[in-house]
Amino acid sequence: MFSDEAKRCQTNYIRRLLRYAHSDVISLAGGLPNPDVFPLPEEYNAIVNKLNLKKAFQYSSTGGINELKEELVNWMKTFNVDTNADNILITTGSQQGLYLISRILLNDGDPVFLEEPTYIGMINPLKLKDASVTSFELEDDGMNIDLLEEELERVKKLGVPKFIYVVPTFQNPSGITMSENKRKKLVDLANEYDFYVIEDDPYSKLRYEGDEVKPIKAFDDNNRVIYLGTFSKIFVPGFRLGWVVAHEGIIDKLALYKQNIDLHSTTYGQYVAAECLKNGIIQKVVSNAINVYGKKRDIMLKALEDYMENAKWTKPQGGMFIWLKLEGMDTEKLLEKAIQKGVAYVPGKAFSYYGGCESSMRLNFSYVSDEDIVNGVKKLAEVIK
Amino acid sequence: MFSDEAKRCQTNYIRRLLRYAHSDVISLAGGLPNPDVFPLPEEYNAIVNKLNLKKAFQYSSTGGINELKEELVNWMKTFNVDTNADNILITTGSQQGLYLISRILLNDGDPVFLEEPTYIGMINPLKLKDASVTSFELEDDGMNIDLLEEELERVKKLGVPKFIYVVPTFQNPSGITMSENKRKKLVDLANEYDFYVIEDDPYSKLRYEGDEVKPIKAFDDNNRVIYLGTFSKIFVPGFRLGWVVAHEGIIDKLALYKQNIDLHSTTYGQYVAAECLKNGIIQKVVSNAINVYGKKRDIMLKALEDYMENAKWTKPQGGMFIWLKLEGMDTEKLLEKAIQKGVAYVPGKAFSYYGGCESSMRLNFSYVSDEDIVNGVKKLAEVIK
Repeated sequence: MFSDEAKRCQTNYIRRLLRYAHSDVISLAGGLPNPDVFPLPEEYNAIVNKLNLKKAFQYSSTGGINELKEELVNWMKTFNVDTNADNILITTGSQQGLYLISRILLNDGDPVFLEEPTYIGMINPLKLKDASVTSFELEDDGMNIDLLEEELERVKKLGVPKFIYVVPTFQNPSGITMSENKRKKLVDLANEYDFYVIEDDPYSKLRYEGDEVKPIKAFDDNNRVIYLGTFSKIFVPGFRLGWVVAHEGIIDKLALYKQNIDLHSTTYGQYVAAECLKNGIIQKVVSNAINVYGKKRDIMLKALEDYMENAKWTKPQGGMFIWLKLEGMDTEKLLEKAIQKGVAYVPGKAFSYYGGCESSMRLNFSYVSDEDIVNGVKKLAEVIK
Repeated sequence: MFSDEAKRCQTNYIRRLLRYAHSDVISLAGGLPNPDVFPLPEEYNAIVNKLNLKKAFQYSSTGGINELKEELVNWMKTFNVDTNADNILITTGSQQGLYLISRILLNDGDPVFLEEPTYIGMINPLKLKDASVTSFELEDDGMNIDLLEEELERVKKLGVPKFIYVVPTFQNPSGITMSENKRKKLVDLANEYDFYVIEDDPYSKLRYEGDEVKPIKAFDDNNRVIYLGTFSKIFVPGFRLGWVVAHEGIIDKLALYKQNIDLHSTTYGQYVAAECLKNGIIQKVVSNAINVYGKKRDIMLKALEDYMENAKWTKPQGGMFIWLKLEGMDTEKLLEKAIQKGVAYVPGKAFSYYGGCESSMRLNFSYVSDEDIVNGVKKLAEVIK
């Protein structure tokens, strides 16, 4: 009865696990922002009560409202990215951006390059397209660019993938950040071998230590980079708003496809986001998040030091996730026991297109209370032992 | 550079034309609700100021929030449809429902049955799938069911389409309503020949005269009907919220696909819509719309009587559109002249999968002022003459 595409639709690990966030189990599995960093009701309501509702309630254009795109042009300047409204598409969450990109660039079975591990939200749209994936393992400073270059050289006669997808800053799931040198090298390779770099950048404003690294898009003189931003981590996820920055030809095609999916993203939410950027509400959420999550990261790192044995983990300078590697243990099998003990995480397999990363797991530190971070890590250490 | 699917993405007529709504041209082209029927700011803000923002700002489940689904169970009772929360999926506008249905049911090139004319929002997703379409002309009381039965009989050995798509009440673009008898017969045929009926029902609450006709879903004892509702015409379009009512197996598959597209629809908007249903705000918008649009329909019908020659048009009992047929005239070619004269409409071709309906056009009466309806029709009559 169902289409081939529908048959490729798989139940999503994280979604299933998110349920535990509301039970007695301490969930280090989710990727939710902490409600404590959301805008204050008084400040937020003051903004929305002043909206021009006749406009905010109405249909609007597929590309997004100009008021928001203009604010985003300014916002992107704080990332050292110069752009303009015609190069921006407003999306229904960055998830929609990932989906749209896979749709306009890929035919069934086309080759794609990924990081290993990679973000689950890109894996599923690629599975719908039955993409043929080559993954490049992450090192402490991002993907192994030498291996990438070797592979490009090897496949250049057969056909280079249309794109490589990366989350270069505080990656979900690993927390790893790609070095500036590797970013520059990646743009050079994109120019040399003729492919796009999809740069997914939800977390880079959430830096708790170390120096800022410019997005790959900042080194892109040749329209090789398709950049994705989102309001979900710097404002609220509840409006489902993100954006894409790319060459106008790409933006137009994405918008044309988007018409089929939802005509346009929420007009009301776009006006709210534009006003909250203009009035500094979003900037407040960011500095709040840096305080709250930075402390939680420290607490989780200390708890891991204190309790965890026979494991290695990343020390992210920002974002929301830590990546934990065990020795020769299957974290998918371990999960059931962990849940019985009262703690949940996401097994590494969920972040690998072909089911690798079996002995790793993703831990989230943004959502649960400081106390539960310690208790969760303690329980996890016991289960592993 | 682009995928085959992307190459099938065509620029959308209506979208291009909507631009005229903001210029000096009187646009009878759009399909916008009139801002005069939107909720009053005081009443609306009183509701949103009481929302639990920590919930409304957060991620939520793909299927939709329970609070809204429960309200919709009650709302569907006013349509004589008994359902429950597990049979409902919240979508990002009913456009998303149309897209999702085409995705989970169709492979490339699969056959589909449509009305002629049909809603443009379904044509484009079907073109992405390169669907093989058979269209059935609309009579005064809905599609020609006898022709449909003949065709089903003819193709039953080759393979019956997975679905037929209909807008049975105050159809966009024709304003035509399918009779109860034809509705029942359609369900019988669906059972006999094993296909789904996609019932798109945005307008049925906007009835200005005549007796209510139950939705096709009300006659569906066998899970043959996939019903689509939307808040865009009974509340506001600006949140992009719609819903699907169908068998749980269908709902689950739609939700699984939806995860790829936007994870979930706006949490904030869903809480707002649930509260506005609970507090009677939406019911007020509906009775407002009935008053405002009913009067505008009368004005347009009278203006057509007064000024239009050599044309036939429908007399819809509700909705937002009138369908005008000229004799042997190409309404696509005529459009440029009409715009020069200061009036716009949508040419019939836009509502036909293979580019039929050349001598017809869609006129909208919900958006422009009473005065502009008369002036627009006058100008149009002059252009045609």
